[in-house]
Amino acid sequence: MKWIYPDFEFRPERPLFLCVISNTDTGKIPGISAAGTSPELTDYTPGADAELVETNKIITMPELPEAPGGSPTPAIVTKAALNLTGIPSLFVASGLRKKPAIPYVELGGAGGNDIRKQPGVPDARHLYENAILLGKKLARLSDCVFIGESIAGGTTTAMAVLRALGYGGNVSSSFCSNPVDLKARVVEEAMRRAGIAEGGLRNDPVRAVAELGDPMMPAALGLMRGLKGTKVVLAGGTQMAAVLVVGRALGIEGDISIATTKYIVEDCSANFREIVKSTGRPYYYTDPGLEMSKIPPVQIYAQGYVKEGVGMGGAALLAGINGVSREKLVEETDRVLMTVELPKK
Amino acid sequence: MKWIYPDFEFRPERPLFLCVISNTDTGKIPGISAAGTSPELTDYTPGADAELVETNKIITMPELPEAPGGSPTPAIVTKAALNLTGIPSLFVASGLRKKPAIPYVELGGAGGNDIRKQPGVPDARHLYENAILLGKKLARLSDCVFIGESIAGGTTTAMAVLRALGYGGNVSSSFCSNPVDLKARVVEEAMRRAGIAEGGLRNDPVRAVAELGDPMMPAALGLMRGLKGTKVVLAGGTQMAAVLVVGRALGIEGDISIATTKYIVEDCSANFREIVKSTGRPYYYTDPGLEMSKIPPVQIYAQGYVKEGVGMGGAALLAGINGVSREKLVEETDRVLMTVELPKK
Repeated sequence: MKWIYPDFEFRPERPLFLCVISNTDTGKIPGISAAGTSPELTDYTPGADAELVETNKIITMPELPEAPGGSPTPAIVTKAALNLTGIPSLFVASGLRKKPAIPYVELGGAGGNDIRKQPGVPDARHLYENAILLGKKLARLSDCVFIGESIAGGTTTAMAVLRALGYGGNVSSSFCSNPVDLKARVVEEAMRRAGIAEGGLRNDPVRAVAELGDPMMPAALGLMRGLKGTKVVLAGGTQMAAVLVVGRALGIEGDISIATTKYIVEDCSANFREIVKSTGRPYYYTDPGLEMSKIPPVQIYAQGYVKEGVGMGGAALLAGINGVSREKLVEETDRVLMTVELPKK
Repeated sequence: MKWIYPDFEFRPERPLFLCVISNTDTGKIPGISAAGTSPELTDYTPGADAELVETNKIITMPELPEAPGGSPTPAIVTKAALNLTGIPSLFVASGLRKKPAIPYVELGGAGGNDIRKQPGVPDARHLYENAILLGKKLARLSDCVFIGESIAGGTTTAMAVLRALGYGGNVSSSFCSNPVDLKARVVEEAMRRAGIAEGGLRNDPVRAVAELGDPMMPAALGLMRGLKGTKVVLAGGTQMAAVLVVGRALGIEGDISIATTKYIVEDCSANFREIVKSTGRPYYYTDPGLEMSKIPPVQIYAQGYVKEGVGMGGAALLAGINGVSREKLVEETDRVLMTVELPKK
């Protein structure tokens, strides 16, 4: 079988896989996110993803992060890809309430707010500046940095920021059936609270993120800016596509592209391609082939559950350009899931 | 003028300057440490050093970290060296109570205890393992990693660990006049509490660190182990020499050396050379030439105040091998000190 990675011809010598981990109370609105089986556990999900990727253990959360449909976190695919390639990962906490028990970079900031009630990221400027500082350092060490994310509720804040910048397209969902109407209601309510009209912040993208976004965004944007001179690949779906849109509005330049999964590109409830095309940046997508998994909750990824997260599509791309076949990636994904250590109850 | 860096012939392509920042209550014993003007501020000193190096601002501490003699933190020399070379730095928190407001890597762990009263580093194993994980990643990105430290009270815990491993030599001090007797009394009391005789833990270096050490040590040791394959230069005085001794006892292999200042090597109250020679590792030392400073509290470094810290000697070495003269380093050190932003009162 072949990988789908049109035109991704660069072969990095010292690739680095970053993943921004953040919390937002927007993700706790019932029905918004499929990350974490209950709103109480939502804040723990990004840290648990980091623990899984770094150690194949879940340490600070009582159970494996999973979606209501029963699918495990996409961190298992990312972990498999990094295991098979030996590419180093580094998790970056930005507005994260529940910290993982593994080494990670701390950018600071408070957890994000419910955008219906308060500005989403009051610390946006500080997080952005800290991320620029970090990006500049990493640019000296790596020739190609992938940036993934794990934040429950992030597609809703992405939709809100896109609306404020005048983009009407839809975002994806970790649910198989995208709760588009619920998201749209949350976004409307947030824009009303902040007194922002559709397209009203075209010239003030920083305020769009601070009012309607989440703490992952200023981190990813600052990294993009600081990493100038190094190839940057955003690893994610419509959330990262929204980051691309904000980056363009901020005038961030450089060799920047986006990589995601086939499941996102084929999501007819969302507009990944259109959003990315509006920025003029290239996109790549991979087919991880999870229908070949021996584990039914992993197989159903191929039916549109989960779709993306923890930079899964980008990690699969890195595996592909390092000669890993889909069969091998799926086999390793199954092995990761079967061997992950959970906390003793 | 010439630099003194005998035999340091390696010219790194992608050097990285790490600095481990930690707290220990041992540093709050009156008279033990010159870092921070009062015991209440001791815990803030490492974070403030990190803020100074990363941003030339002090953010979370009310004043510039300085010694009782009035000398400013050696972070100003490190900052100057990194400014002049563009070498990236990364601070690594290990058992740090007061976190800096800049991006840093978090290894976790609680602040270290007063070794007279309790085991110094109950989390030693966890910190060591997290640091190994971090070291392995950084080994993929950098061909030469310097590891400095900022921890008030660290020479006393270094002395205690050396005693437990059977080494009788003396450690240095950030005071001009080394309070050797006070340190020896603290070390004796700690060894009595833990029931450890001189040389009694020769075969159990991990217990020596956990009982008598500080949280900087397992971090530096784990990094050394994880960085195997990359050149590692410990940047510090007798504290880092003690880390070398523990590293040898743990069987840590690799291209490992130590770099410090002339002020440490010439400290007749301590035994830097002897401690290092016992490990068989090479050492380098630099003369930063601070007598040329226009600022009296910096000039007195050359009389033996402060001596080392925040990897100052190693940072000066990096400046030297990058063609920076002593005159230029001193000029930039003065400029850093004159322009550092302090919190508004």
